[in-house]
This record gives sequence, structure tokens and C-alpha cells, in this order.
Amino acid sequence: MVQIMSNNQLTESGQLHHFLTIEGFKKSLLTEIMDRAEQFSSVSNRQVKKVPLLRGKTIMNLFFENSTRTRTTFELAAKRLSADVMNLNISTSATSKGESLLDTLHNLEAMHTDMFVVRHSESGAAEFIAQHVAPHVSVINAGDGCHAHPTQAMLDMFTIRRHKQHFADLRVAIVGDILHSRVARSQIQALATLGVGEVRVIGPRTLLPTDCKTLGIHIYHDMEAGLKDVDVIIMLRLQLERMEGALIPSAREYFQCYGLTEDKLQLAKPDAIVMHPGPINRGVEIASSVADGPQSVILEQVTHGIAIRMAVMSMALGAQPEVVA
Amino acid sequence: MVQIMSNNQLTESGQLHHFLTIEGFKKSLLTEIMDRAEQFSSVSNRQVKKVPLLRGKTIMNLFFENSTRTRTTFELAAKRLSADVMNLNISTSATSKGESLLDTLHNLEAMHTDMFVVRHSESGAAEFIAQHVAPHVSVINAGDGCHAHPTQAMLDMFTIRRHKQHFADLRVAIVGDILHSRVARSQIQALATLGVGEVRVIGPRTLLPTDCKTLGIHIYHDMEAGLKDVDVIIMLRLQLERMEGALIPSAREYFQCYGLTEDKLQLAKPDAIVMHPGPINRGVEIASSVADGPQSVILEQVTHGIAIRMAVMSMALGAQPEVVA
Amino acid sequence: MVQIMSNNQLTESGQLHHFLTIEGFKKSLLTEIMDRAEQFSSVSNRQVKKVPLLRGKTIMNLFFENSTRTRTTFELAAKRLSADVMNLNISTSATSKGESLLDTLHNLEAMHTDMFVVRHSESGAAEFIAQHVAPHVSVINAGDGCHAHPTQAMLDMFTIRRHKQHFADLRVAIVGDILHSRVARSQIQALATLGVGEVRVIGPRTLLPTDCKTLGIHIYHDMEAGLKDVDVIIMLRLQLERMEGALIPSAREYFQCYGLTEDKLQLAKPDAIVMHPGPINRGVEIASSVADGPQSVILEQVTHGIAIRMAVMSMALGAQPEVVA
Repeated sequence: MVQIMSNNQLTESGQLHHFLTIEGFKKSLLTEIMDRAEQFSSVSNRQVKKVPLLRGKTIMNLFFENSTRTRTTFELAAKRLSADVMNLNISTSATSKGESLLDTLHNLEAMHTDMFVVRHSESGAAEFIAQHVAPHVSVINAGDGCHAHPTQAMLDMFTIRRHKQHFADLRVAIVGDILHSRVARSQIQALATLGVGEVRVIGPRTLLPTDCKTLGIHIYHDMEAGLKDVDVIIMLRLQLERMEGALIPSAREYFQCYGLTEDKLQLAKPDAIVMHPGPINRGVEIASSVADGPQSVILEQVTHGIAIRMAVMSMALGAQPEVVA
Repeated sequence: MVQIMSNNQLTESGQLHHFLTIEGFKKSLLTEIMDRAEQFSSVSNRQVKKVPLLRGKTIMNLFFENSTRTRTTFELAAKRLSADVMNLNISTSATSKGESLLDTLHNLEAMHTDMFVVRHSESGAAEFIAQHVAPHVSVINAGDGCHAHPTQAMLDMFTIRRHKQHFADLRVAIVGDILHSRVARSQIQALATLGVGEVRVIGPRTLLPTDCKTLGIHIYHDMEAGLKDVDVIIMLRLQLERMEGALIPSAREYFQCYGLTEDKLQLAKPDAIVMHPGPINRGVEIASSVADGPQSVILEQVTHGIAIRMAVMSMALGAQPEVVA
Repeated sequence: MVQIMSNNQLTESGQLHHFLTIEGFKKSLLTEIMDRAEQFSSVSNRQVKKVPLLRGKTIMNLFFENSTRTRTTFELAAKRLSADVMNLNISTSATSKGESLLDTLHNLEAMHTDMFVVRHSESGAAEFIAQHVAPHVSVINAGDGCHAHPTQAMLDMFTIRRHKQHFADLRVAIVGDILHSRVARSQIQALATLGVGEVRVIGPRTLLPTDCKTLGIHIYHDMEAGLKDVDVIIMLRLQLERMEGALIPSAREYFQCYGLTEDKLQLAKPDAIVMHPGPINRGVEIASSVADGPQSVILEQVTHGIAIRMAVMSMALGAQPEVVA
């Protein structure tokens, strides 16, 4: 659809405006997002899980690709910030009348919309939209093709920080279909920006990008070797349609080579945490006993996802954090 | 799907926590629900039909079975209590990605959800979910298979109380497909708990449960005999697919035997009220002249449904009634 | 479905109650709507785009015909007035259970609904509903068949007034499929009521109504002649299915005869504005260079649509404008 260009995600005064990709952000901004999310985490534990930070703001969830789970977290985050939120399933609406994407967008922004949250199956869609919206509108990328999923990466960083404090000392392994994963791509960028000690990617040759080496990432095709002494294991979801494409043999064989079992988990550090962006395929990329085991922080990731999205949304709309308190 | 087990719907201190089935509740609790609903009835008549009781609470409508009408009443009740409410049509979302029901649930509860309102075509689904959610989450059954529909039963009890005051003196007839009706099952339990004078069920042999006698219910296959001197007539909706199953001959014949006409209504007490959970099949289970007639309280039931759901939701989430005033 | 009858859109004391068609309204009321919308326009530019005018009111969007764009504007308008708004896609819900439209309606109104916003493919649907709802319920027509789309017409009038001040001096041309257009019908009535200088309709014989002459409208089949010296050009959307019906030859030929190009635009007054209700078919009824050009006010129309709907909704529900300030 579009070429992915370098983008301008900050205002001239250095405030967050769009959130499209981790690429290009400084460590200080990623840290600010996590610090802000820390404040919102307490909001979700209150009796009244709501702050008036974005009251009167209009946020539109533009989901060109269906994803109830991600849409729900953005919708909840918006509601807990007291924004008005609208869900638009674009694929089934305006485009069915033959209207162009840009016309639909300009119409929606003419309604005094403050933010678009965009999910799209094509890489670069969110950036394309950000380049064409009016200056007052913020765009948040909720996943575009194989390109980026920056709020997912930030909730993962937040989860790691909650458990491990300092990134510099950590060894992090990402396991699975790195090649097609927008989540992995954003995670790798975030880990690098936060100065993590070592990033390893583990997977079959067919599912690893060719440019891994130039990215300073350690590559493992053997999972046992790759997991040795890591602090954090991030399992990726296996898109089952990859098997049809003959990129992997069968779910069973995949699990044998790259599924995370209790045995393999033993190779990591004793206090290693296990992460997964969900939804999980039990018995394909992860054994149930590990997914539900004491080292799994998979459901914490979901919880932190709300706080991270509240942080990004409120920062992009310029709401002052003191109102939270 | 699951075996229906005895359940624990109250907290240790005796507060309502889940609302899955009428079975096991004491008369005092059912009365408390109706008393609370009485307070909320006045809210719906105000200029501002809203109370801040559940502000900042997150309620998710999990509808595995489509029911716009019931979902609408729960959504409205939640909004009038100032809760944040999310509608999730589960059948068409997460499960399409192959995620298990429990994984979906645990994900949603990790978002700091306070309540699930569950509608499912399988009996026992709401109880299954209640057994597996985190302790802080309340589950309300909005209808599960042929098992239970407790908020419907309570709005029916509330409607009866509004018109008839004392349950002990009443003769109540339930007419139609008792065998497959979650509504009837919950009504019978509620009527028994509230100590109604006499419950009669009226219907063809093929649509009556075999255990009616042991439940202390009077069975009639002849509608004229069954309606004699009753105070309340509850018509059930005939699922038209029953006819395909050859359980009943035809809509026309059914109406002749078990449809409520003005003639048959004459057999009941002169001040008998006519109820129906809706949606009604005019000319199948009820004549239009009766449905729209002076003894019909069918639309009142709908109105009371909002108040009852507000009552149950606020009680389950521990909101104090004094805030209503 | 129904015969379109003369209707009573005002209460006995002359307040707006239903908004079904422009027909029958006095100039003073249309002016009041625009004046009120002027107030709401400033609300949408505020930091907090919300006023508490309709807090605690329940508004139901009943869309029997899908229209994401129009539904979105009504939903946004309702939310910015702080109402509780519910979206009901009726075609896919209640009627699938065989319930009659009126039963569905009476059920929804029994939930203490204050307003129905109705979109339907059949002419007269909104009036039919208005005739059958309880007296406390307001009905807003969001487009019914080929009959009327009065809020669209009012946002068009508002847009014209913003640019041209006095209607009496204006020459307005409406171009395209007048015959099937509810938008055109409502516009013509509004323009007449507001005392516009001259209304012209431009289109092929097959797409112009036969009663145009009796309406005091000037008819042009030649677009060049029709556009001469006009102040306002309103392009209509061409329903592409008209071509299947052989009412027009092809999109290409249509564009040649009745598409608005820069050349043809030159024939109008130099400060003429170009309007379109959207969604636009670029290269069919309008050239992209015109749609995006300096004389186009198409996106302003969208913006004003929110303010007009806020005005109509708040007036119909009797909310006092002083609360806006």
C-alpha cells in the first residue's frame, strides 16, 4: 500500500503526537511512557477506575482488521480516561460504498476527532494515515501488517521493568516467527533503545529475517542453546496459516523444536519470566503447564496493556499527568 | 458443556456476588432485589435517568448467543448506573482465532473487569464461567440454554408484586413450552421461594418436564381447566423450531389448544394479569387482542427489566443503595 | 410500507418534538435550529467538547439501513450532549426472531427511551414510527427511502448561511439524481422555506421529478446553462445502481454531461461554493480537483452536521440552550 517513511511522531516542542513505531524514539520518551503507565496502574485498582483526563475528547477506533482483544483494550483505556470513544469497523462500512480511504478519514476528522487508533493488515497503513490527517489529530498504531505494534512492545517493556528493573543487565530471547511479527519488530527496537544487555532471536531459518545480524541480534536455530541463562523469554504467536505456506512442517513438529516446555524453561535463569502477546496456541508455541505456570506473566501483560495505552493516549493528547493524582 | 453444580452466589458475609440461578436463594434476598428495583424504578422516571452508583466500574456483556433485546436492557441498566460497559460478541471474535473460552475470559478479567454478563446457548455456561473467574469478578447469567434466566424471573416477580402484593394468595399459571424454557424454570423457582399459593403449568405432554410432579406443581394439558380462577397467566414464547422437531403439530393447531384468546382469558379471575417474556409470536401463543388488551402487563415487564437489572448489578458490585436517593 | 401523511412535529405549545421532514416547518424554526447550531459549533472547538444538556437521556439509533457515516454523526452529537446512546442494527436483530416492527419499538420505548433516530430504506418509515410511539418519545428522521433527510438539509442550509448570509439573494443549483434523492427533496423544501432567490435543478430527464415545475423550480438539462451565475452548487451522490437500471448510460458519460469540473465551475459566480452530502464518487459526479479545491465546502458540511444534530436533538428533548454557555 505505502512505502514506510521516516516519520515525525513528536511535535516541534518534543511532545508525543503520533505513536506509530518505536523506531526513532529516545530512551527518555519510552521511560516517560512507562512512568506514566505506572501512575495509571494504580487507577485500575481503585474503586472508581476513571480519571477525567480526556473528558470531551473524541477517539475513534479504526479497525480495518478485526481484533476484538486489542480494540477492547484501547476502548477500555479511552473510557477510563473519560474520552468519548467510537468503534468503526471500516472494512464493512464506508469502503463498501466505494469511498476512498482518505475521503473516509477526512470525513471522520471533520467531526472534530482528536485521535485515530488504527489497526490494518497492511504495513505502513498507520503512517500513511498520520501523514494525511489534519495537524490536530493524533494517530496511534494498533498494529499494521508485519511492520509495528508499538503499544504492545511498550506493555512488554513495562512488564519486564516491573519484574527486572534494569534493562542493561538482561538477556532477552524472542522465540518463533520473527519474520512476520510486528510485535517482535517493535520489541527488538524497544529493547535496543532501552539498552538491554543482549537480544536473542530463536526460530527456524524460514521464520527469521535475513537482516538480524546487522541489527546486532544473536540468532539461534537451536532453542536449547538460545534459552541458556536468559532472564526473559518472549514467545510469539504462530500464525497457523504459515503451515499452509510450507514455512513450517506441522504444529506438532513445531512444538517439538520451538514450543516452550517445562524442560526447556529449565535452561533459562531460575527467575526468568515467560511472556506472550496472546492469544496463545496451547501446545503449539507453548505448553499449557508453562503458560499457566509460576514464571508466566502473560495475564499481567494484558493488565499492563491498559495502563500503557492510557499513558500513550493521554500523552499524545497533551493531558497533564497531575490530573491523575 | 458442563455439569450444573450447586453454586456459591453469595460472599462469605452473605452479600450477592454472582447471579446465576434463582435456586438456592432465600426469600429475603429475592425481596431485597425487588425492594432495590423499586428505588431504581423512580430513577427511570426522572429527568436525569442516571445515578453514579457504579461510576468507574467495568461491565462486559459477553454474548455468545445473539440477543439484542436482552443485551440492550443490560447495557442500559449499566449506563444508568454510570458504569463503563463493553459489548463483546464472543462467537465472532476471539474464538475465531482458536483461543479457548477460558483464555479469553482470563484475558478480559485481567483488564480489571468487575462484571461479566453472560448469555450462552449451552446450559451451565454462566456457572462454568463463575467457577473460573477471579474472585473479584461477578457473573450475571443473562440466559443459558434451557437452564436459567434469573433476571427475567425476577422482573416477572417484580411485575407480579406491583399488581398483586402478596404471593401467598396467588394462583399462577405458566403456559407453553415449559420443558425447554429457562424462563419457566427460573420463574417456578422464584415463585416457590416467594411462597406463592399455587403454580400450574399448562402445555402438551411433549413440552412438559417429567419431574413436574415432584416439584409440587399442578399439571394441566387442558388449558381451559388450567386457567380457571388464576390470578396470573404467564405465556411462554414458542420456539418455532419445535415444530420442525415434531413436538407440536402446527402453529395454528398450537394456537387453538394453547394460545391465549379473549375467551380463554375469561376463565381466569377478572383481574388476572397476562405476562410474556417476549418477543411474542402474535397468533401463535397469544392473540393480539389479549397481548394489547387491558389485562396485559407485557410492556411493563420490559420497563421493570431495567430496574431489576440495575438492582442486581449494583448489589453484586456492592454499591450502597443510599447513593440512589 | 406506509402512506406519507401530514404530520405533527411540534408540541401543542409549538416546541419541536419530532424532526421527520422539513415540510410544514416555518422559517422561524429553521432559523432557530441554525442559531442553536451556531452555539454548538463553538462547543466542538473547545478543549472539552461536551455539554451536560442531555445527561441521563437515552437515545437509540435505529438503523434499518446501514450507514456508518450518518450513525457516527448522530452518535457523536448525542455523546457531546452527554446523552446515553445505544446503536441498534434492527435488520439483523429483533426482526430475525419474527417480531413485528411495532412490537420491537414498543419494547424499546418501554425502556424509558427518550428519542429514536431512525434510518430506513422505505419512504415514510420515520413518520410511521412517530405515529406509533408513546407521546414522550421524539423521533428524528436520519433518512427514509427517497422521501426526506431533514438533518442533512439543515446542515446544508447552515453551511450556506455561514458563507452567504442572506438566502433571498441566492441562486442555488442542485445537480444530479433529484428524482431518487431524499437529500434533494429536503433541501428544496428548506431552501423554499428560507426564501431563497432561485432554485435550479440540473440533470437528465430520467432523473428529474415530473412535478418540478409546479414546485416553482427551474429545470435544466444542460449543465452549462444551469450553472450560470449561481452562488451555490449542490452536487448529489449518484447511486451507481441507477446505471444498472438503464436510467443513465455509464459513469463516464454521466461525468461528461453532469460531472462538476473546473471548467464548468467557471460558469458559476466566482465566489460560488461547492457542496456534496457525501460520500463522493470522484470522477463520476465531481472531479477531484473541484472536490478538493478552494471553493469546496464538503468537509465543512460534515463538521456542521454534528452541530446541527446537537441542535435538533437538544431542541426535541426540550433542553434549554442557556446550559450550553
